[in-house]
Amino acid sequence: MSQFLAEKYKKLEAYVPGEQPRDMEYIKLNTNESPFPPAPSVVDVIDSKQVELLRLYSDPTCLKLRQKLGDLHGLKAENVFVTNGSDDSLNFIFMAYGHMGAMFPNISYGFYKVYAELHQVEYTEIPLCKDFTIDHNMYKGWGQLIVIANPNAPTGICLGLKEIRQILENNPKSVVAIDEAYVDFGGESCYPLIAEFPNLLVVRTYSKSRNLAGGRLGYVLGNKDLIEDLEKLKYSTNPYCINRLTLLLGEATVDANDYYVDCCKEIARVRENTTKSLESMGFEVLPSKANFIFAKTDVMDGKELYLALKKKGVLVRHFDKPQIAQYLRITIGTQEQMNEFIKRLQEILDGGDK
Amino acid sequence: MSQFLAEKYKKLEAYVPGEQPRDMEYIKLNTNESPFPPAPSVVDVIDSKQVELLRLYSDPTCLKLRQKLGDLHGLKAENVFVTNGSDDSLNFIFMAYGHMGAMFPNISYGFYKVYAELHQVEYTEIPLCKDFTIDHNMYKGWGQLIVIANPNAPTGICLGLKEIRQILENNPKSVVAIDEAYVDFGGESCYPLIAEFPNLLVVRTYSKSRNLAGGRLGYVLGNKDLIEDLEKLKYSTNPYCINRLTLLLGEATVDANDYYVDCCKEIARVRENTTKSLESMGFEVLPSKANFIFAKTDVMDGKELYLALKKKGVLVRHFDKPQIAQYLRITIGTQEQMNEFIKRLQEILDGGDK
Repeated sequence: MSQFLAEKYKKLEAYVPGEQPRDMEYIKLNTNESPFPPAPSVVDVIDSKQVELLRLYSDPTCLKLRQKLGDLHGLKAENVFVTNGSDDSLNFIFMAYGHMGAMFPNISYGFYKVYAELHQVEYTEIPLCKDFTIDHNMYKGWGQLIVIANPNAPTGICLGLKEIRQILENNPKSVVAIDEAYVDFGGESCYPLIAEFPNLLVVRTYSKSRNLAGGRLGYVLGNKDLIEDLEKLKYSTNPYCINRLTLLLGEATVDANDYYVDCCKEIARVRENTTKSLESMGFEVLPSKANFIFAKTDVMDGKELYLALKKKGVLVRHFDKPQIAQYLRITIGTQEQMNEFIKRLQEILDGGDK
Repeated sequence: MSQFLAEKYKKLEAYVPGEQPRDMEYIKLNTNESPFPPAPSVVDVIDSKQVELLRLYSDPTCLKLRQKLGDLHGLKAENVFVTNGSDDSLNFIFMAYGHMGAMFPNISYGFYKVYAELHQVEYTEIPLCKDFTIDHNMYKGWGQLIVIANPNAPTGICLGLKEIRQILENNPKSVVAIDEAYVDFGGESCYPLIAEFPNLLVVRTYSKSRNLAGGRLGYVLGNKDLIEDLEKLKYSTNPYCINRLTLLLGEATVDANDYYVDCCKEIARVRENTTKSLESMGFEVLPSKANFIFAKTDVMDGKELYLALKKKGVLVRHFDKPQIAQYLRITIGTQEQMNEFIKRLQEILDGGDK
């Protein structure tokens, strides 16, 4: 840290992304990426001519992509805000609407807290219930920004549309942002509520169910006035923030929707198989609707198990935090990867490999 | 604008990027892009396998690219901060170091003022001299962030290393950020001063001299403590902000340095030719070291001429601002494009086309 840094950022603790070690080849189940490539028709839109056109700026309005995403959700381009991954969207949301404070679950995406601290937003972490579910009745603010991941991370547990509606009805003076990064793997999106609630923002990403984590594309759906606020902040920060090729990939992805629906179904199928295998090995697995599961065993400490798996070439994510330190978050890969994961896990539990 | 937006952003006026009209095919000389594609060896690094790998996140540390850029400048990876275009870098610099205020020229890159307003930074706009040069002796602060584009935009006029050194010596308590977006077209980079001055940041972009505007890649060179500050802010905002393919393109670009040096030489050659042509037509052209020129004529109003050129299929940039409203900023394209520009311009000046 330099002597020049503004006082307000000196104590800021940055987000810690999942590790990307290079010391060996891992079965990588730690950052919730898709095991499947983008659709063939999506991959095909990139040719050398398009790469050569990178000499030109991308369209800062992202109009074509916004129109396609609008159509996909029965909305208009003016209801769609496109960003460099959904982290970028969340950052703008905390900036724009955090001035009265923010509320989010005490166990959730770790970045919410970082955004709040970055923007000097006073925040309240609402405790999850004992079974790790969200009690939607605890979200009653007087203007605070409410942010809820649905399904929640790292638990994978979902709220229904009825509960989301209740939160919106209880908070007409707050912006309610529902982070649906994982919704396509079994949850129900709340975007149909946008017509009714001018305070609802639905945050989506191409990183998980659209197999494009490295493309950096996220978007927000919402009332056009809210989208206008977010556009203003984007145009005051980095108007051309999306790669020209990524805009093309994003558009083609909408056209190849069926492929991605199939990928999500396969992930859900493998998730259920993996859950059964883990349960039969004595693990407790939370009921996940995401592309990961959150599981623990009584026979081995969470951190110890994470390290033993890493030693055996399997990367999962462990959070050294109260309440969840015994759990591992395991991304769902292909059936083959998960079979291999279960095999190596069994070897560890059988002993001799700790 | 919604009723929910934080008060402090309500009056914010966003940056207005150069127009990207789609109503016809233009000779596009308005956003300082390169008329040349990336080097063939750079284009070749993108194949369908790499596009498929977009399912995975990019390396948030950007380590390989930072090592290459460090080597290129005789620095280390720890001296290099990589971002989503240099706008992203500038935004972090205003965030990190604007708390004591900021100083920049009154005629310069219009985004500086937007960043200052976005982050509630009190700023002083230092007037240019009558000949549009920067008087480096006017930059004496007591901790304010100093931001200077060198060459300056939209004038194209350069400061020498001696003047930059003087600014640094006059401001040991300030971070001095030199925005070298256009330096490769004829200016002298001040990165060799980094070893001497722990308060110097040198901002660079791939958008202009690296023919990669649509790739979104910029970087900052500086003392490792400053770089650490900026990394912390990036990791608190959007750690994976660079596209996976762009990292590869950025690395390959360093390896193809000679190609880009040649492109810059060609741009400089065409710039001198274009300047001569304009001068022979009675234009006043500021002495540019950038990939654009700033020029005016006494026989036609600046805005009127901009509109007449647009009607004739040539896009240039006009700024409706005091002191410079008579000028046009004209990006240097290929010799053929500039010949065509001069031809259409002559037709306008000959009358009948206004």
